[in-house]
Order: sequence, then C-alpha cells, then structure tokens
Amino acid sequence: MGVGSLRAVTLHVRIVGTGLIGTSLGIALSRAGHDVILEDPSPTAVALARDLGAGRLASQDTVPPDLVVVAAPPDVAGAVVAEELRQWPDAVVTDVASVKVAVLEEVRAKGGDLTRYAGSHPMAGRERSGAVAARGDLFDGRAWVVVPHTESSERAVDLVRQMATDAGGTVSVMSPGEHDAAVAVVSHVPQVAASLVASRLRSVSEGATALAGQGLRDVTRIAASDPQLWTQILAGNAPAVRRVLSDLRDELGEVIRALDSLSEGEGVGAREVLARTVAHGNTGHARIPGKHGAPPTTYGVVTALVPDRPGELARLLHDVGDAGVNLEDLHLEHGLGQPFGLAEISVLPAVAERLEQELQARGWQLHG
Amino acid sequence: MGVGSLRAVTLHVRIVGTGLIGTSLGIALSRAGHDVILEDPSPTAVALARDLGAGRLASQDTVPPDLVVVAAPPDVAGAVVAEELRQWPDAVVTDVASVKVAVLEEVRAKGGDLTRYAGSHPMAGRERSGAVAARGDLFDGRAWVVVPHTESSERAVDLVRQMATDAGGTVSVMSPGEHDAAVAVVSHVPQVAASLVASRLRSVSEGATALAGQGLRDVTRIAASDPQLWTQILAGNAPAVRRVLSDLRDELGEVIRALDSLSEGEGVGAREVLARTVAHGNTGHARIPGKHGAPPTTYGVVTALVPDRPGELARLLHDVGDAGVNLEDLHLEHGLGQPFGLAEISVLPAVAERLEQELQARGWQLHG
Repeated sequence: MGVGSLRAVTLHVRIVGTGLIGTSLGIALSRAGHDVILEDPSPTAVALARDLGAGRLASQDTVPPDLVVVAAPPDVAGAVVAEELRQWPDAVVTDVASVKVAVLEEVRAKGGDLTRYAGSHPMAGRERSGAVAARGDLFDGRAWVVVPHTESSERAVDLVRQMATDAGGTVSVMSPGEHDAAVAVVSHVPQVAASLVASRLRSVSEGATALAGQGLRDVTRIAASDPQLWTQILAGNAPAVRRVLSDLRDELGEVIRALDSLSEGEGVGAREVLARTVAHGNTGHARIPGKHGAPPTTYGVVTALVPDRPGELARLLHDVGDAGVNLEDLHLEHGLGQPFGLAEISVLPAVAERLEQELQARGWQLHG
Repeated sequence: MGVGSLRAVTLHVRIVGTGLIGTSLGIALSRAGHDVILEDPSPTAVALARDLGAGRLASQDTVPPDLVVVAAPPDVAGAVVAEELRQWPDAVVTDVASVKVAVLEEVRAKGGDLTRYAGSHPMAGRERSGAVAARGDLFDGRAWVVVPHTESSERAVDLVRQMATDAGGTVSVMSPGEHDAAVAVVSHVPQVAASLVASRLRSVSEGATALAGQGLRDVTRIAASDPQLWTQILAGNAPAVRRVLSDLRDELGEVIRALDSLSEGEGVGAREVLARTVAHGNTGHARIPGKHGAPPTTYGVVTALVPDRPGELARLLHDVGDAGVNLEDLHLEHGLGQPFGLAEISVLPAVAERLEQELQARGWQLHG
C-alpha cells in the first residue's frame, strides 16, 4: 500500500466465551491486527483457544478493553453482557447470540448501562462445535447483523460494526425486533418444519423410507441439528417464532380441511386451496436471493451420469470448464442400488443447450 | 453372451399418453427389444414421441397388446385404465400415476376387469415436462413400485414387474394403501411443508430474505414445484396426506403451546417439548437411507473455498481424486457478496483428515 493509505486503529478486544464462534472471531480479529484477550469459565477451553492463535490470556499489564464480545450460549448471554458492562465502565459490549430481544431484555433487567451495549449476530456456524472446529475465515462473506436498540450510543454501534467488518462479515443493521422476526422466518421456523417432517419418518416401514428422493432429503437435512442448541434458540425467540408458526398452522388447517372435503365428497373449492398453497410457496421461494446476493435466477439444468469412482466427477467438471461454461450450482444425487450418481449442473439458461452438446460430444451420458 | 443364455420374450406394449413418462418409457422399452405402440389424444404429441424413438403408431396390422401402460395425468388415469381393460380383453393394464388407491377405486367404479389390472409408480421425473424432455434412461436405478391389489392375477403382477425392470427401474412391491401412505410421508407432506415455509417469505422485508442461508434454501427448494400437478397429486391422495398432516399439526400445536408458555412466563415443561421435537426429527432423519440404498452413514465433511471461475471446481475435485479419496456427496454454497463458493465435500470419516492435509498441501484454502 502507498504511504498515504489509511491505517486502521488497533482495538483492544476482550472475547468472553471461547467456543466455535468466540475462538474463530479471536483468530479473525488477531489476523486483522487487533489485540485480543480471551476469557472462558473453562481454563482448558481458553488455553486451547490461545494455542489456536485466537489471542492471549489476561495478565496484570492488560489494558481495559475498548470492546467486549460476549460469545456465550444464548440463554446466558444477557447476564454475561450485564456483568461485563459493570466490570468495564468505559467499554462497548456486544454479543453474538442468534436471538436479540431476549438478550436485550435480560441486560435491561440486570441494570446494565444500555448506551454502551449493541447486539450483533453473525450468520455463521459449523456442524462441529468447540474451539477445535474454529477457523479464522468462518465469517468471510457471511451476513453479520448489527443490532442496536434505541439507547445504543453511536460509538457503540460504530465499534461493533467495525469489529464485524474486520472479522470478514458483510454487515447489515436491524432493530432487535426486526432481527428476531427475520430469523424466525428464515431460520427458526424452517428448523421446526424440517424436524416435524422428519419426525413422521420414525413410524414408517423400511419399504417406505426406501422411496425417499432428493426432495425429502433436502427438506429434512437440517432435521439432524442439535436438540440442546435449538431448544435454547427457539425458547430465546419464542414470541417471534410463535407468531410465524401460528400463521403457518392456520394455512395448514386450511389445507387439511380441503383434503377432508376431498376425502368425503366432491370437495368444491378444495383444489383452489391446494393450488393456492403451492403457488404461494412459488412466490415466497422466488424471493430468496440467488448467488452472491443477486436477484434469483432460474438456471438451466444439465444432468449427467457420473460413475461412482474417484476422479470421475472431476473429469466431468473439467469438461464443463473446458466448454467455457461457468457452473452456477451443482447437486449430486445417488441412484438407488446403482454404481453411479447423477450430477445436476445448473448454468445460465442461455448456455444450457450448448453445454449438453459439448458434454455429449465428450462421451458423457446425460440423464432425465 | 453364450449360446445357452436366456432370451427375454418380446412384449407388445401399448402406451397411452406420450408425455414425459410415457415417451421415456417407450424409448426405454423399445431399446429393451419390446414392440411399443403409442397412443395419445394429441396427434402432435404422439408423432413427436414416435420421432423420438418411443415406438410406432397403431396401424391395421397391429396385434393386440400383451400390456397396456396408461401414462395419463393422475386425475384421469382410472377412467383410461377402465377403458383400456374393456378395449383389450386379453391384455394386462397398468398405470404410472403417483397415487394408487384413487386410481383403483375409479377402475372399480367404472366396472373394469380388476384381475388384469395392477398399478405401478416409477419414482422418476424432471423439472421439464412433455415428450421433448423424455429420456430413455429416466428410470435407470430409480425405485419403481409395483402395486397389485387383492384381485390382481399373478400374470398381471409378473408382466408389470418385468416391464418396470426392463425399463431400468429397481422394483419393490406394495399394496395400494401401503404405497399411498408411504408417498404421503416421503413426498407429499414434505411438499406441503416446503410450500408453507416458503409462503412465509412473501411478506418479509428484503433485509430479512438477505439473511437466507443454506438451511432455508434446502427446506424450500421443492417449493418451486408446479401448482397444477401438485393439486392433482394432493387431491388424489387426500386421505393419506390428511392423516400425516393431521399428526404433524398436533405436534405443531404442542410446539406453539410451549412457545406460548415461554412467551408468557417460566414455561415449565416447554423446553422438554422443544428438545423432544428436534430429537424426534433427528431420529426420523437417521432413517433416510444413504447412498445406493445402504444404511445412512455420517460422513466427514471437508469444506474448501472455490474461486467463482470456470474450471476451479473441476481442479478441486481433480485434486480430491488425485488424493485417492472417493467423494460421497458434494454440496455447493455461495457466499453473500463474495466471488467464491464453498464446496462441502463429504467423504468417509476415516479419510477426512487425510483429505484436509492433501488439499492444504495443494494450496486449497479450507473453510469452516
């Protein structure tokens, strides 16, 4: 960089809680040049985080922090934030819990100085938990919501925003109520729905589960999530999740009544209910942003048979690259009892036909 | 093959309905050496199917069929089956509709000879419809359920089974009631759930949809399905879908009551309900068979950053193959506002660590 470039200020950041998120954040902020002090109730956890490069342990010469990040579980985050506000009377304090109204209410109930608090929520995670799964690039390119409340000072919001940006996140700003309503729709209700659909599989025959296709697999993938963590999240966002689930139950009731009337007779009007339900799903689905946050696009899909041997998928994608076609998305599906998989290659619609020709010319068997 | 090998008998098969399924079936059965006659209310559709190699048109020298396959939409399949039973008094008749009790009841109501009828259901389809999307390998390795009822003759079941096998399907046998209960759980209820979850997105802000992650995308992928087709399917399987949705609604009600009690106070017992709901989802999810119909396996997941340029994913998978590691599954995720994607590579747990080392040694950046 040139001599005239701006140099970012080094922050003294204290991270309380060195699990997956806290440790990953420590690594990311240390790499960004900040001074990170680590704290955790478990001496083993905090030492491991230090060994992973997430920061250093507190000592006698530690200066008071500019910013405290509370990375504790959702159900204790509010109490810890209040304690940190008391312990460090000049510091801004934030947390990274996935619910925000409940944390704010807990801080308020404990009498913390609310002007120095602004919540936040990085939309990042892994299947594995704990410091050992931490990565300094966990937040790269992920949404990070900064969540000030009405009493948050400008300095508090600015510091939290800077921290989230320096950690690699793509920052947006919402109020606590907006945040909780949003994650109820895009994250918490889908989790409940996936769990309830998967739950139905407990009591069916093996012959029935053998009919499972990609649709069922997709709908229920997140049903494998951790019950303890999700109990905390759902309980922490109970009012917002309840509102959305209640609307969903009303529409589900309408569908069930339509199916009732079809089971018992002519079902006048029932087909309109069913068609409207699926059509409304089309409309909602179309609102999910596409790749890189761009507007959703309908891709052309080319499906090829891939023998189940090392290197075959690579060879296919090498041929896609050779054809000069950029792959927008890729989905693998495995045939039942067959030694091959199906690779569904999504590309821009304009190039789909050319890609089909190119792949066939290279000997690939395309599939329906 | 040696001189002593068995030679399959050539069947005279009449296919009524030359859309995606009928035309694909015609191509597959013609390739398997059978004599296929095509029929469709639309002269254009039937001529197109012929041009695609699905069979030939009826003429004066056409012999009566051994087997008639009705590939008409679900809501007319029963009536067409009854008509074909009447028209061809020696033929076995089957259909390929995705619901089976309603079709059987319709055949019975129309007075068809039920001994010569056995239903079936190939678990195959494409996003595109019509003969133009047909492929002779559409059924390769897919489950194909043969669905006899109590009056089906042995000959009827054997012929339908042979046809399904010759078309490339992996055959299983269920009663109409078993079939409809199974597809309600593994296909129809997941569709309703995905539509209802996606429907919630209609009324939220753009800021909220920007927080959409892979979980939401997976749960709602099939919410993009065709409303008209799904209205026919859901209406055709109304009693079975209704039963499963009704159980789901009961559990949803329990979750909502738990969230109510948490919103209003201590919520004693509420956390047990939430934890049990997610845990039951874990149990159900674990029953979905893995690759090739084998028992589900927990794979190790290695996640790598892939620059968004043609050929990069191929290079990554080439390196995976070079490492001698067989890829079990692959999932692509696109970062928000970033010029790269994340490739989640599932491999057998025993080789995950070695793959991480091999990829890092080849310069790949791994990600959390």
